[in-house]
Amino acid sequence: MIDLRRVKLALVGFGVIGKGVAKVLAQKRDALRGMGIDARLVAICEYNGSLIDANGIDPLAAVQHSLDKRMDKPQQWKQGATALSVIPESDADIVIEVTPTSVETGEPGTSHMLAALNAGKHLVTSNKGPLALNFWKLVEAAEKSGAQFRYEATVCGGMPVFNLVRKCLPPNGIESIQGILNGTTNFILTKMHSDNLPFEIALQEAKERGIAEANPKYDVEAIDPAAKLVILANAVMGMRKRFSDVRRMGIDKITPEAVQLARRNGFSIKLIGEIANGSIEVVPRLVPVVHPLNVSDTLNALLFKTDLAREVLVVGRGAGQMETASAIISDVIDVCNATAGA
Amino acid sequence: MIDLRRVKLALVGFGVIGKGVAKVLAQKRDALRGMGIDARLVAICEYNGSLIDANGIDPLAAVQHSLDKRMDKPQQWKQGATALSVIPESDADIVIEVTPTSVETGEPGTSHMLAALNAGKHLVTSNKGPLALNFWKLVEAAEKSGAQFRYEATVCGGMPVFNLVRKCLPPNGIESIQGILNGTTNFILTKMHSDNLPFEIALQEAKERGIAEANPKYDVEAIDPAAKLVILANAVMGMRKRFSDVRRMGIDKITPEAVQLARRNGFSIKLIGEIANGSIEVVPRLVPVVHPLNVSDTLNALLFKTDLAREVLVVGRGAGQMETASAIISDVIDVCNATAGA
Repeated sequence: MIDLRRVKLALVGFGVIGKGVAKVLAQKRDALRGMGIDARLVAICEYNGSLIDANGIDPLAAVQHSLDKRMDKPQQWKQGATALSVIPESDADIVIEVTPTSVETGEPGTSHMLAALNAGKHLVTSNKGPLALNFWKLVEAAEKSGAQFRYEATVCGGMPVFNLVRKCLPPNGIESIQGILNGTTNFILTKMHSDNLPFEIALQEAKERGIAEANPKYDVEAIDPAAKLVILANAVMGMRKRFSDVRRMGIDKITPEAVQLARRNGFSIKLIGEIANGSIEVVPRLVPVVHPLNVSDTLNALLFKTDLAREVLVVGRGAGQMETASAIISDVIDVCNATAGA
Repeated sequence: MIDLRRVKLALVGFGVIGKGVAKVLAQKRDALRGMGIDARLVAICEYNGSLIDANGIDPLAAVQHSLDKRMDKPQQWKQGATALSVIPESDADIVIEVTPTSVETGEPGTSHMLAALNAGKHLVTSNKGPLALNFWKLVEAAEKSGAQFRYEATVCGGMPVFNLVRKCLPPNGIESIQGILNGTTNFILTKMHSDNLPFEIALQEAKERGIAEANPKYDVEAIDPAAKLVILANAVMGMRKRFSDVRRMGIDKITPEAVQLARRNGFSIKLIGEIANGSIEVVPRLVPVVHPLNVSDTLNALLFKTDLAREVLVVGRGAGQMETASAIISDVIDVCNATAGA
């Protein structure tokens, strides 16, 4: 049982998202206390060591310091103490796993997550690779130890997805899911549509604005949205799908001529993911300009077809430091509430 | 404490929505049991009497029978026993209030709701009039008796609104709310836009399709969306607003020329409600054709501006028998979960 007055958090990974979590913990300290939650950061694990302080780490001081690179480490820094040794020994109630994602190996996330769940620690994560590869293994580990497992931030950042389905849509059955699950490709396609740019120039602009990574393969080859679809299929539709089950086509072969031809006929070309009739695909498709899924720029959108409420669409920011941290802290609150009476 | 094995429901009002609730209870019986909820209907109150059966009323038989008009009443029918006398004496755990709404008087809903809450019974409702007029009075009655009070179905039918904010958006602060809160006027404006119809003809088509009522005043004069905005302002933004605080303008003065002029310039005219900077209004506005709020036909849409997740938009069916019943049963499930550990 979590003591709601003092919930102890271990943060594994301290990049953009980890620092976002620390910032939100500081910014929303009073709001969390208003909900009866005194969240205390007791460990931050970096790849080369950990900051450990049972009395509570000042989140903003840690963000300022950056931890991994500077020579003047804080007194509580333990060089070489990495997550796999820190997690089982920590007195944290909740482990927040936010290391870089890999859809190829699922590591180091999967090992961190199993270490947390096997130790009976609740797990909150934004790291989609481990879930795309090992979803049911992680669920089973959580069930075995009685730990809570939350992953709202793995799909579409700050936009509610799993919480929407689980908390807002019962008693509905979900018949299909369709949508835009990648902000980078949506930005590129929007630029191609509105400004009549070729793919390479639109990609270049996305890189310059920090929307696309230097190696944009995960996005333009639709690997990122395919991983999200696998998580959705398993978590929301109860399927047993693997990453290799997704039919996938990227956007790098789309010509300006195709985009403008679509536009003249009242359509946009969008990278649309779909889970329907037991199969999963993410491919470029024509979407009518006035269709609710035709959202612009970096927005994400998911359309749930349900048996009672019919269509429910949610649109939001699928990425971003504070947006993703918002989803993570939302899950932390949810774990606290779910275990409050335990 | 509710015994999750047997939660007893009293249904007050047995029109389109009440019958929808009965249908969903029958259709989702197994799904509810899967959540540990054996929901049993122990009373259905009509304006002229009530059907009362502690052993459980067959919901589909009641829907078939219609109760109020036919002479061959079921054995358990008590002629003249109306909600105000039945509610306090019933052994129902949850009262579901779905009588016709009145934004002028708030009755008979307000009296039913206070009777339920004062008797310590949990309350679930789709009836917006009482909430638009007496929101804080009802909240205080619930707090005094320790009863749960849920009203997801009062605003935008099957589209999640209150549950979205309360369960999916913490730890966000809500900075403003903007959207389309009335499906009838959205249908009329869509017809004026797409088919170049004058207001009267579009309204006539809405009536023929059963989308507009014979007296469409509540919709076309923006009374219905104004009532919903008052509930949102109080429930979501913590304001203390009254119906008369809403600046309101209907759609009946909008000319086909205005709609087509907007269209030629890339805009739709939409009836947009907004809560921002402490004030509330619902007025026709120009919305860019590719804006996420530009949804068609009878769809509703609400855009929440938040401090961390930024924009979160939800789109769905704002009315309809099964859609609204879906929201009501969603609230019933939520009350069961909230009180399970009590």
